[in-house]
This record gives sequence, C-alpha cells and structure tokens, in this order.
Amino acid sequence: MTETLFTNIGQLVSPKPGVQRGAAMRDLTIIHDAAMLISDGVIRWVGPRPEAPGVLQEHDLGGVAVVPGLVDPHTHAVWAGDRLADFEARVQGVPYEEILARGGGIRSSMQATGAASVDELVALARSRLEALRASGATTIEVKSGYGLDFDAERRMLLAIRDLQAEFSLVPTLLIHVPPTEGRAEYVHAVCHDLIPTVASEGLASAVDVFCEREAFTVEESRAVLQAATAHGLGTKLHADQFHAIGGMELACELGALSVDHLEASGPAQIAALAASNTVATILPGATLHLGLPAAPGRQLIDAGAAVAVGTDLNPGSSPVFSAQLALALAVRLNRLTPAEALTACTVNAAAALGLKDRGALVPGQRADFLALHSRDWRDLPYTLGASPVREVYVAGREL
Amino acid sequence: MTETLFTNIGQLVSPKPGVQRGAAMRDLTIIHDAAMLISDGVIRWVGPRPEAPGVLQEHDLGGVAVVPGLVDPHTHAVWAGDRLADFEARVQGVPYEEILARGGGIRSSMQATGAASVDELVALARSRLEALRASGATTIEVKSGYGLDFDAERRMLLAIRDLQAEFSLVPTLLIHVPPTEGRAEYVHAVCHDLIPTVASEGLASAVDVFCEREAFTVEESRAVLQAATAHGLGTKLHADQFHAIGGMELACELGALSVDHLEASGPAQIAALAASNTVATILPGATLHLGLPAAPGRQLIDAGAAVAVGTDLNPGSSPVFSAQLALALAVRLNRLTPAEALTACTVNAAAALGLKDRGALVPGQRADFLALHSRDWRDLPYTLGASPVREVYVAGREL
Ligand SMILES: [Zn+2]
Ligand SMILES: [Zn+2]
Repeated sequence: MTETLFTNIGQLVSPKPGVQRGAAMRDLTIIHDAAMLISDGVIRWVGPRPEAPGVLQEHDLGGVAVVPGLVDPHTHAVWAGDRLADFEARVQGVPYEEILARGGGIRSSMQATGAASVDELVALARSRLEALRASGATTIEVKSGYGLDFDAERRMLLAIRDLQAEFSLVPTLLIHVPPTEGRAEYVHAVCHDLIPTVASEGLASAVDVFCEREAFTVEESRAVLQAATAHGLGTKLHADQFHAIGGMELACELGALSVDHLEASGPAQIAALAASNTVATILPGATLHLGLPAAPGRQLIDAGAAVAVGTDLNPGSSPVFSAQLALALAVRLNRLTPAEALTACTVNAAAALGLKDRGALVPGQRADFLALHSRDWRDLPYTLGASPVREVYVAGREL
Repeated sequence: MTETLFTNIGQLVSPKPGVQRGAAMRDLTIIHDAAMLISDGVIRWVGPRPEAPGVLQEHDLGGVAVVPGLVDPHTHAVWAGDRLADFEARVQGVPYEEILARGGGIRSSMQATGAASVDELVALARSRLEALRASGATTIEVKSGYGLDFDAERRMLLAIRDLQAEFSLVPTLLIHVPPTEGRAEYVHAVCHDLIPTVASEGLASAVDVFCEREAFTVEESRAVLQAATAHGLGTKLHADQFHAIGGMELACELGALSVDHLEASGPAQIAALAASNTVATILPGATLHLGLPAAPGRQLIDAGAAVAVGTDLNPGSSPVFSAQLALALAVRLNRLTPAEALTACTVNAAAALGLKDRGALVPGQRADFLALHSRDWRDLPYTLGASPVREVYVAGREL
C-alpha cells in the first residue's frame, strides 16, 4: 500500500461530507498550512502539516490552495453534429419554430447522433470530457437522450460505458423527446422494454425525464420514473425549465435524487423542494447562453434546500465546457456565495448522483482534489475566462 | 525575405479592413480552402488555395478555420494585491460603501499597486497578459490608473513598457480616481505636469479619464483630454457606466478614439455616438461580474455606430482573463451577432486604439491571426469555458 503525504497546502478547503442544506452550504472547513495523506486512492488523514504522520513519500504542493474535485451532475456530453447555424440564427432573432422548420434544433442533433457509430460518439465526447476534467470535474454525469429510437439511446449509453475507462462517469438514461405520434405506446415501451434492458445491462445508474409542456407530461414522467425505481435505478427529472407544470412536485413525491433546471420555480415549488430530500440542480450555463431568467438559487438556499450546480453541457442550450465556469456563473447569475457554490459543485453534486464517497476532503473519501494556481481558494469562483486549476487528481492520481 | 504560405485553411474569415459601422459590421469575407502568404510579419496575399503563388516554405494548418488575432482595447491588467475579500463581501450583499470602509474597494488596489516596484508589477501582469494572449488577443491595451500619486502612475506605465518586449501592448494613461481634496490643483497638475512628462517620455499612446458622478466631471475630463491632444496623445473616455452625465457627448465632441462602458447610454447618447467618428467600446465582463445592465450593443449597431468589445480586465469589476470570452459574452449579453462580435474584437477594437495596420486578413496588414481547433469559425463566439483557439500568431510568428 503506497502512502503519499501531500504537504505544503496553503489552504485545504472543504465542505462537510454528505449533502448540505441551506445555511450549512456556507460552512466550509479551512485548514491553513495543511497536509493530506492518501493511500489506495482514498484520503486517510487531513490536518495541519506539523501534525502530519511521517511517511516515505511526500509531495510538496508549493503552498497553493486545494479544494475537492468538482462533480458535474448534469451533462449531455455525447452528441454528433453541431448547432452552430442554429446559434447564429437564434442570436439574429429567428424563432425556434423556424429553426426547427429549417431542419435545425434538437431534432438535428438526434439525426446526427442517430447516424453515428459508438466509436464516433466516443471520439466526439472524449475531447469534451477532457475539457470538463481539465476545468476541475473529477466526476461527470452524462445523459443519453438524443436517440431517435431505443437502439440509438443504447448506443449513446454504450459510448458512455466505453469512456468510463478514461473518465469517472455516471451514466443516466434520459427520456427526452416524445414521438410526434404514438406517445402512449412510446412511454409503455420505455417502461417495459428500454428501462428493463438498460437496467439488466447495467448501462445507467438513473433515469431522467424531460417534464415540460412541449415534452413529457407529469403523468408520463411518473410512469417512467416508477418503472426506473422498480428496476433498481435512481430517478431524476428535468423540471420547471420553462413552465412549472408540476414536475418538481413529482420529483419530490417520488424521492428523486435531483430535480434539475428550476428556472420557472416559484415560491410554492421552492418550499416543496426545501421540505424534500431531493437535490435542486441549477444550470447557469443555459441561463447565460439563452438569455433566459436564472433559477432561484439564492431563494432555494434561503428556504433550506440542498442546491447543486451543473454545466448542462449540450450543443443547443449550454455550450459550457467548464465545471469551474458553471461554479463561477452560479455566483453571478444565481447569487450563490463562493462557499455555497463550492458546496453545490462538490458534496451536493455528488448527492445529486447518489454518491456519498466523494466531494469532501475528509478521511474515507475518494482522493479527488484540485491544486489551484492560487494560494486563495476564492480564485476558483472569482476567475472568468482562464483556468484557476493547476492540477486535477482523481483517486489520488494526477490526470 | 522569408516567405511562408499558410495552406489548408478550411475557412479564412475576416471583416473588411478599417473601422466598420452599423450593418457593415456583419459583412465578413469567408474564403473556403484558403491560403495566406506572409513575409516579414505582414500578409502579402490571401485567396483560394489553388490560386496561391508557389513559395519554398509551406505551413499546413490542417483544414481548420483562421480568423484575425483579437484586439483587446480596454484592460487594467497592471495591479497588485487582490480583491477576493471584496468579491466575497459583495456577493453576500455588503454595500460598496462598507467595503470601502473596511479598507477594500479600488483604494486597496491603489495602496497595493503604489507599494509595488516596477519589477513586481511586471511579474504580476505577465501571467494575466499570457492568459489574454492564449485566449486570442494579439494586441492588448493596458491602462495605468491605480497610482496613488504621479510617481506610482509612472511606475505602472514603466511596467507596461517593460512588458512590450514580450507582448504587443498599447499603453494608456488613465486619470481614474479624484483626490479627496484639492481636485482643481490635481487636474491642473495632470494637465501641466503628468501629461507633458508622459508624452515626452513616450510612455502612453492615449489619455483616458473616468467621467462619472463619483469620479471626474465633464469639465475636468475636458481639460484633461484637451491637454492630451495638445501633447499629441490620443484621447479616450470611461463614460456612461452608471450615469449619462455628458461624458459620451464630450468624447464625440473632442473626436476621442473611443468612449467606453455605455451601460447607462440612452437613445440620445446612442444617436450622438452613431453620428460621430468615435468607437463605442462595450465591456460585457463587467456586466456579468457585477450583475448590472448591459450596454446597448444591439441598439448602437442598429443606429450605425462602430462597436468594439474589450475584456475590461481588472480586479474589482471584471476578472475576465480571455478576449474570446469577452467576444462570446457580447453575443449573449449585448446581443451582437457572431459576425458583429468578430468585427468588434478585431478591426473596430484596433480603431479604438488608433491602429489601422491590423485586425483584418488582407494584404498589407500585420500577420496577426488565430488557427482554431474547429473547421467552423463560429465555434469562436459559441464556445464557453474552453478555448477554441489552437494557435496564436503575432506578426507571422507562433507564440
Ligand atoms: Zn439537461
Ligand atoms: Zn475600465
């Protein structure tokens, strides 16, 4: 068992382990002139350097700040094709309906993704995941959801499985776009064919549904998530992005791991979420990219909810290739404090994925951590447009 | 004379040379499968690859898109100390007056900068300028303005001069913060002591004034800019950031190179600027960081103005270390189209600095250009949080 003592850590900064709610999100532990002992990829000891146990192998971090590796709990990182023409048209004021009519929009991503092989999807996603990891993301959730049919959905999940050899990923089956006809049959087949297959093959940890006026109804979403639970999978929901049609309440009722987006959540939804065990995942990249209202991050925390932050990396509504930028945007757009944003991107994001073994720098946690360029961890939320991350460690190994 | 032919350029994309106003900002030239001939740091020929002249040395760019190097026309990249405690306090809702009372705010940057040697300022600014250049900025304006006294102002300008050995910089003397007493004497000394000294030493290309209720009045600004003109220096103005007190109109009246900020500009100011020869420089980083209204970029272009975009890199109101991010933010926050944003960050930003020899990829211009990772130049405005820039060339040399 090789032990390494990381020493000369100017500030070792961490939230408390486990999900943190409300004001507890601001309660960071900061150890100055710290050291951290790691063996077999797990943190064994943290504390002030003078009290560190003696070990053979030491690694001097040069006095910089160290924080937990970031967890990106919401991405759509597997896609083919691009949406650059859509982007240009949208900022010129072309309505989304016309973009769809021109052959753009989400259906163009589905066409291109459906036409790609697993290997092509792997190659396309790899560089995106490399960018996310370089930005500080040591665990990344990746959703399916651009499948034109079940076979295409499964190929997306197979691509994610292949990429798990290189990255620490959490795969989610996303039921994203209803068919233009035969909705009832489609939902039935999702529940009785797709979910059982995915569960038996171990291709996803959770099932997510896009619950929205233009997507799946609350009752359709309920059926899908109940099937997920019946097959031992976790549940998540895209809800309240444009309209609060009851998706958030459904997620809380079913004990979903997380409910994501929430831009349209009002006081009633915020209160319901704060009273639940479901994590509120907000996605400031989509707010910036689309110029739409921000999710009420400040109000959610003040109400006592557990908030997480994700990039929502996807080609149409959030081309954000950096977990650090998502963290920094949550401070500007959702009014989180720097400490809350760090908690949102670490232990709370891990909780949104059902993971308890990472996100905090305490003994027993996986040794996922970032050495910054700065001696002050607040450069992580502060910096815009450059990376404050000097090195990324996953399970104790620099990547 | 070494000639190099850059070949296999998937798209060579450029605005027309010289300042572009209104709808002309959208008028890009795009040559597919292009080549570009460079000698002595200057572009000699561009066109379709099959028509390229034969030369000894070829450089294959691998089919990616090439755009002009970006010009960052507005930074405060030289400072000492940090404003991280201010940042944390501000997002927690502490009023700026209380931050000042705690010893924070701009006066803390002035204290720290005033206490630093020229060499210390050079070392601190170098890593910021490296980040800006890696983001695509091949020419960077840098202002003084954190001087507690004239000697400290001069040390800032000496630091910029030292850094010109490594970077392509344009130095500006910024008259930023009025003294708490003796304003008239201070402005007199700026006009009759500081400006003549700086002009005779060649330490600045232009003079800028912060014209605002809490800073210098229109009449004080007029006196300073007239002294600048009398000593052969260009003029610029920080105006209409919080209040439209007449600074923008002054800039137009005096024929300033640019007037910068404009968040508070209304229809009358927009019309006046569109009728002038002054460039409107907008700064979306400050909009994002402070959560304040965006400058009316869309309206300025629609009125016929020439708009430029800068990072405003500074520790208090815009920690934006990427010219590419400023470009990308101008699309989201100021509603520029991708083509307008490219023009704003190239030829128009050069015009804001009085430079006519760069910003477009046409014969006779300095060979400042970017090879992107992508074959589609629109990844430059589209990408958030990762760098779409593969290589940065300044005067034909890769840096
Ligand atoms: Zn999503
Ligand atoms: Zn400024």
